[in-house]
Amino acid sequence: MNGAIKKADILIETLPYIRNFYGKTVVIKYGGSAMLNCELKEKVIKDLLLMRYVGINVVLVHGGGPEISSILKKVGKHSKFINGLRVTDKETMEIAEMVLAGKINKEIVALINKNGGKAVGITGKDGNLAKAKKMVLTNDMSEPTDLGFVGEICEVNPQLLKTLFDDGCIPVIASIAMGEDGETYNINADHMAQELAIALKAEKLVFLTDVEGILEDYNNPDSLLSVLTVKDALEKIKNGGISGGMIPKVEACIKSIKQGVRRTHIIDGRIPHSLLLEIFTDKGIGTMVIE
Amino acid sequence: MNGAIKKADILIETLPYIRNFYGKTVVIKYGGSAMLNCELKEKVIKDLLLMRYVGINVVLVHGGGPEISSILKKVGKHSKFINGLRVTDKETMEIAEMVLAGKINKEIVALINKNGGKAVGITGKDGNLAKAKKMVLTNDMSEPTDLGFVGEICEVNPQLLKTLFDDGCIPVIASIAMGEDGETYNINADHMAQELAIALKAEKLVFLTDVEGILEDYNNPDSLLSVLTVKDALEKIKNGGISGGMIPKVEACIKSIKQGVRRTHIIDGRIPHSLLLEIFTDKGIGTMVIE
Amino acid sequence: MNGAIKKADILIETLPYIRNFYGKTVVIKYGGSAMLNCELKEKVIKDLLLMRYVGINVVLVHGGGPEISSILKKVGKHSKFINGLRVTDKETMEIAEMVLAGKINKEIVALINKNGGKAVGITGKDGNLAKAKKMVLTNDMSEPTDLGFVGEICEVNPQLLKTLFDDGCIPVIASIAMGEDGETYNINADHMAQELAIALKAEKLVFLTDVEGILEDYNNPDSLLSVLTVKDALEKIKNGGISGGMIPKVEACIKSIKQGVRRTHIIDGRIPHSLLLEIFTDKGIGTMVIE
Amino acid sequence: MNGAIKKADILIETLPYIRNFYGKTVVIKYGGSAMLNCELKEKVIKDLLLMRYVGINVVLVHGGGPEISSILKKVGKHSKFINGLRVTDKETMEIAEMVLAGKINKEIVALINKNGGKAVGITGKDGNLAKAKKMVLTNDMSEPTDLGFVGEICEVNPQLLKTLFDDGCIPVIASIAMGEDGETYNINADHMAQELAIALKAEKLVFLTDVEGILEDYNNPDSLLSVLTVKDALEKIKNGGISGGMIPKVEACIKSIKQGVRRTHIIDGRIPHSLLLEIFTDKGIGTMVIE
Amino acid sequence: MNGAIKKADILIETLPYIRNFYGKTVVIKYGGSAMLNCELKEKVIKDLLLMRYVGINVVLVHGGGPEISSILKKVGKHSKFINGLRVTDKETMEIAEMVLAGKINKEIVALINKNGGKAVGITGKDGNLAKAKKMVLTNDMSEPTDLGFVGEICEVNPQLLKTLFDDGCIPVIASIAMGEDGETYNINADHMAQELAIALKAEKLVFLTDVEGILEDYNNPDSLLSVLTVKDALEKIKNGGISGGMIPKVEACIKSIKQGVRRTHIIDGRIPHSLLLEIFTDKGIGTMVIE
Amino acid sequence: MNGAIKKADILIETLPYIRNFYGKTVVIKYGGSAMLNCELKEKVIKDLLLMRYVGINVVLVHGGGPEISSILKKVGKHSKFINGLRVTDKETMEIAEMVLAGKINKEIVALINKNGGKAVGITGKDGNLAKAKKMVLTNDMSEPTDLGFVGEICEVNPQLLKTLFDDGCIPVIASIAMGEDGETYNINADHMAQELAIALKAEKLVFLTDVEGILEDYNNPDSLLSVLTVKDALEKIKNGGISGGMIPKVEACIKSIKQGVRRTHIIDGRIPHSLLLEIFTDKGIGTMVIE
Repeated sequence: MNGAIKKADILIETLPYIRNFYGKTVVIKYGGSAMLNCELKEKVIKDLLLMRYVGINVVLVHGGGPEISSILKKVGKHSKFINGLRVTDKETMEIAEMVLAGKINKEIVALINKNGGKAVGITGKDGNLAKAKKMVLTNDMSEPTDLGFVGEICEVNPQLLKTLFDDGCIPVIASIAMGEDGETYNINADHMAQELAIALKAEKLVFLTDVEGILEDYNNPDSLLSVLTVKDALEKIKNGGISGGMIPKVEACIKSIKQGVRRTHIIDGRIPHSLLLEIFTDKGIGTMVIE
Repeated sequence: MNGAIKKADILIETLPYIRNFYGKTVVIKYGGSAMLNCELKEKVIKDLLLMRYVGINVVLVHGGGPEISSILKKVGKHSKFINGLRVTDKETMEIAEMVLAGKINKEIVALINKNGGKAVGITGKDGNLAKAKKMVLTNDMSEPTDLGFVGEICEVNPQLLKTLFDDGCIPVIASIAMGEDGETYNINADHMAQELAIALKAEKLVFLTDVEGILEDYNNPDSLLSVLTVKDALEKIKNGGISGGMIPKVEACIKSIKQGVRRTHIIDGRIPHSLLLEIFTDKGIGTMVIE
Repeated sequence: MNGAIKKADILIETLPYIRNFYGKTVVIKYGGSAMLNCELKEKVIKDLLLMRYVGINVVLVHGGGPEISSILKKVGKHSKFINGLRVTDKETMEIAEMVLAGKINKEIVALINKNGGKAVGITGKDGNLAKAKKMVLTNDMSEPTDLGFVGEICEVNPQLLKTLFDDGCIPVIASIAMGEDGETYNINADHMAQELAIALKAEKLVFLTDVEGILEDYNNPDSLLSVLTVKDALEKIKNGGISGGMIPKVEACIKSIKQGVRRTHIIDGRIPHSLLLEIFTDKGIGTMVIE
Repeated sequence: MNGAIKKADILIETLPYIRNFYGKTVVIKYGGSAMLNCELKEKVIKDLLLMRYVGINVVLVHGGGPEISSILKKVGKHSKFINGLRVTDKETMEIAEMVLAGKINKEIVALINKNGGKAVGITGKDGNLAKAKKMVLTNDMSEPTDLGFVGEICEVNPQLLKTLFDDGCIPVIASIAMGEDGETYNINADHMAQELAIALKAEKLVFLTDVEGILEDYNNPDSLLSVLTVKDALEKIKNGGISGGMIPKVEACIKSIKQGVRRTHIIDGRIPHSLLLEIFTDKGIGTMVIE
Repeated sequence: MNGAIKKADILIETLPYIRNFYGKTVVIKYGGSAMLNCELKEKVIKDLLLMRYVGINVVLVHGGGPEISSILKKVGKHSKFINGLRVTDKETMEIAEMVLAGKINKEIVALINKNGGKAVGITGKDGNLAKAKKMVLTNDMSEPTDLGFVGEICEVNPQLLKTLFDDGCIPVIASIAMGEDGETYNINADHMAQELAIALKAEKLVFLTDVEGILEDYNNPDSLLSVLTVKDALEKIKNGGISGGMIPKVEACIKSIKQGVRRTHIIDGRIPHSLLLEIFTDKGIGTMVIE
Repeated sequence: MNGAIKKADILIETLPYIRNFYGKTVVIKYGGSAMLNCELKEKVIKDLLLMRYVGINVVLVHGGGPEISSILKKVGKHSKFINGLRVTDKETMEIAEMVLAGKINKEIVALINKNGGKAVGITGKDGNLAKAKKMVLTNDMSEPTDLGFVGEICEVNPQLLKTLFDDGCIPVIASIAMGEDGETYNINADHMAQELAIALKAEKLVFLTDVEGILEDYNNPDSLLSVLTVKDALEKIKNGGISGGMIPKVEACIKSIKQGVRRTHIIDGRIPHSLLLEIFTDKGIGTMVIE
């Protein structure tokens, strides 16, 4: 009995957080270990469900690079990468779409619904949620590089998501969109999450990553920054304190903040229940990027 | 961090219970130690808030015998009791109403709202919620005894409660109602809770008491019955296995069950978070009376 | 038959007034003889009901000084008054709340409902309707005087009143509110009425008093002013033409007018049906304070 | 002042009647002196407005035989009548429609709106409100007589009226409808009123006539029957106690009652405010036909 | 079968136009041959129905000069015209109203409903849709001329039309309105259409006329202007390129465009399905007046 | 111009059909040539859009056997078929889901949206639309055969589809569903279409096939049956008049009819605009199976 009472006390500790987030929107970019490790995956899904039950409108955005690569390999295709972006020809795009929209997306939907939720898995194409345009990449000599069907979002129509929220659903978004030219484009999932968060005027945009957050000193794992201002973030990018794959995430945070998202977070998806820890504790986890 | 993760695990354990109760109505008869002890009181209130936040429509019904007696004493009035019922003259009724609707009710409302809720404290009079008629008590010789303004509910109009639910409010009900004769009647709070639960087709009716529940063997405190059927309950009342103040509560359970309330519970309000333990654990606590 | 036809003619005379007030909000500060005299009380209640039936959203705000004093006396407590304000210690506040919310409020609710209405009696605490802060009174030497739990309204959240209007209810408000500190404060009912009228953007704020209105010449009872501009009212307060208990009422009129209430009235509650006379005649009664 | 107070008392006397009719539907067949006499007309219109303001859904159905005859005369046409029904050829029907829908209907609409109401004047054709079929009249020898475009209602679709009620409008209906054959038919206004009352499940159907009501003794004007049962009415028709133009009205009452209209009335439109007298007094006026 | 397939192809060609007009409002001034010729009339009505079915909110405004004249003649009245406007005495106004609201309006309603639509025929009086004031005409010497009951619209309250749209109805408007003085005024139907289009923020205002449109060269029937800017239109009026009865129509286009109507059209009602040709083809027909 | 007018006449011919189907639901099983041939595909999509624009709630259900086979081949897997059903192991199911939900479904969605529609592509998993159970196949000797992840629908929750209809969307359904066991099952698309039509109480269920319909005489292509009763259909199945792949389609028609679908059709998808021909002509095309 005492154990049960202590557990109830723990539930009660969440009251002030529930109060704050009631009716708010949280966009989560799902990726990394939290998506690969079965046990972590189950925990993320349950965290989502709890968030939904206590009145938070949750959107999950996912990519799926590793699985795309693995299927491409099966059918004997090899991708070239430029600046970390996969050069995407028509056949690659078709396979990517199958994997993202037909495999990963549906696995997540199944996992949520198996646990009692009501997920609906869609892409940016569905309901004209997001429109893309071809990404133009120029090299050092200002020459454009053709990445094929790699796009960026130029317009979001969030009505379908709101309809799904009102129906009690959790939208799960595969990061694909259609261009004005009618072609299908592969979209970086961090970028998709950012654009949806902006269009939904989200309370929070959370990136589930495989790092602890942003470090004060790149070489000292104990120097995690809990809070980082936009100004300091820009400085760190400039001086190399933030580098590699972390740059697009931090830039997505900065752009989101500037366009009205209240808070943005880079958190460690390797920690079980990292989402709940972020939402339901004062300290939160990882790094919060703010104005 | 590990502590935090364990806490998150505990939150997650509640998922199946939250799912089951989402959008359901729970009527709670509040009384005894849980209402007198400050620490327990705070815990009950927080339990209520959590229930409300996870989508349960909560109604709290309270009486207040001890406080009425204490104020009556202050003004120099003494009550006569017949069969445990206070003979209630006009002046007593006035004082009872002041104490119930103007003191106890408002203290509970204040406590809920201080903790971030949105309680609205009313009586059966307000919005014509409940209509009463004079209770007629006959003695062994079938002679009627006049208890004064002691009434029983003859009609409930639950619309106001539904309006308050839709507005996100927690209704707190002082157990008083107006008769067709325009007089104010004191209503036993167990009876009021029962009638509201029936009118609202509640999922649960819970009595917070100062006992552990119904015992198999009256003399053996370890013989708590987790479940009691209506048939066994009636048998126990007949053979004295249930007696005293427990009889009206068990009878309220039986009547509620027969008129469509799904589950009724007699639980131990002296246990911290007894409401959460009942709602959010498989075993529940106390005794559940079922069909 | 002729009598009946003449009566019908009288009903028809109200048409233009009904038209004007349809769907508008009228806040009434109820007090004085109209609340003490049984016959007048019944008339006020019926006036309210008629107003509600022809589509006016009516709010009734009441105080209850005399009854509080009488109960305090019964339990042997004596109040000290500073500048007409009762110094209110904790015990006094508790008794005041009981009397206001548990006695006077419920009597009014009962009277309205007995006459076929649907009143709901609440305080500023309920539904977080009004938040108070401690009133700070400084004497001539700028020294603060502690009045105890005497407060003023610092925030109104009128949503609950609108919900009740939509449900066809008449809200009856006991003039009490909770502070940010969680304490209960006694609020001057004139002040509460003013703040609710402002928050509701009321069409009219009406003070039922025991005087005919504002007199041109303080010594000449025949010099009633039907209309008084804010400018003239301020002048009269300055030169003593308005004095004593009338000052806070006139100041409430001025503040309300400045914050968007269309019309404010000080009328004579000793006249039967004074509310109807104000609403349903061209001349109105008492004094109207306007911009 | 005393006069004003007495008037207020009269308003207050209407409270119980307002309560009873709030949200109910009353269909009024308008005709006779109440439609011809300017002063009476104005009074009827104001009665309607008051009924609408206190929450009654009012429908006005009118015919216009005398005006049709007068215009027919102007253009040199003479009508033949069989059993009191005008034999209606195509040209007559066109003129009848012009007079009913383009003159009388719009005059009533103008009068209501001039007095501050929101009337909408339509016919049975508009919004497919009522469908007609040709009336078949057989003579004593069972030979059919052709009355031309005289019809009876065979279907009512009351949706448009409900939409207009919700919008705060008073529908004014000219008694014309379209047949399945696409032809326009003249409908007896008593019959139209009856069919609308049935389709709307009206609380009351009121015929404004030029007689006091049904008399017990046909020769004794003081023998007015306040209440007449369907059984007695049928008896009186059989034995000649009800005759002439009163028969169709009483039959409309009987049919309406049998199909769910609560109360039906034949009242004296020559009495000023006869509608209000019927609605807002206990005795009512004229004869009420009941089950 | 091939014929059927080709027809289907034609349906499919309308898709982009349907898309563009979905949920938009189109006001049509109906007159000339399209209203006199039976075959054309039927086609206009079916065009309207199709427009309604594919989601366009259609309003039809009609006059009826020729029929008014014909009826006036029947009753032996002759009208005087000043500047093309009929001097309208009381009796003329009454007859005009009968013809417009009771004959022409109801014929159109019947025709629409016979074809499966749900038309509701009203005037500017109904539901206080449009308020008029007396038109003041001054001659060359600035002396006012009295035209009697000829008015112009000074206020439109489009709520009733929106209610009818939501109910799936097609409002058919006879061009009559009530003045503040309570008198009925005859309104030029072009002017009424213009004012309704402005109040409804219509997508299109279409005049069905008996000419092909505006010609570049007044003498060359092959010089139809498909598009005319406001500037060029004003120029053409000044230099006589637009004259006679076309002036008020073009001025109505100009005023509508300036007050927010998207597009205005003068089209040839003598061409079968001219409305569909305008809405469902790229070229449209007639002349479009634009900013 | 004459050409344009003739086209308008053709549009107008559709009016009675549009009227009949307004607001009704039509479920279409999409397959065969109409899905493989690019030109036909485009026509089907435009037919759908037109149906949606004229107010029909359209649902498209698709399978994709040939594409699944082709991808399986690419990755070197061969399927065994029993009774025409693909034995589906885990890996096959994964690939089938990718192809159905991630390729074919999204291609259809893209095609609809490119043409101006608002399609949303989902599977039976999303929003818990359809629940499956493992299909049990017994051979002649009543021995069960394990087909792996081949399922049949045991429960449909059509709420999500209704939400999408209200939002103006066209749901496109890949024929996959989740079992109670959490596994993904491949569902025959004819069967899925049937179950959705029943749950939606559809007006029509249409199978787009590669045959003309049901023939009277199997060997005579000119003996197409326009209408087939359930009784005759059962007879034909028994005596071999209906055989092979047509049996499940006809059985789906029969089951749907018996459970409340109004009409079921087997039509020839090789004919351009076969859907429009079915909906918008009296004769329709193919075979209609009715009660």
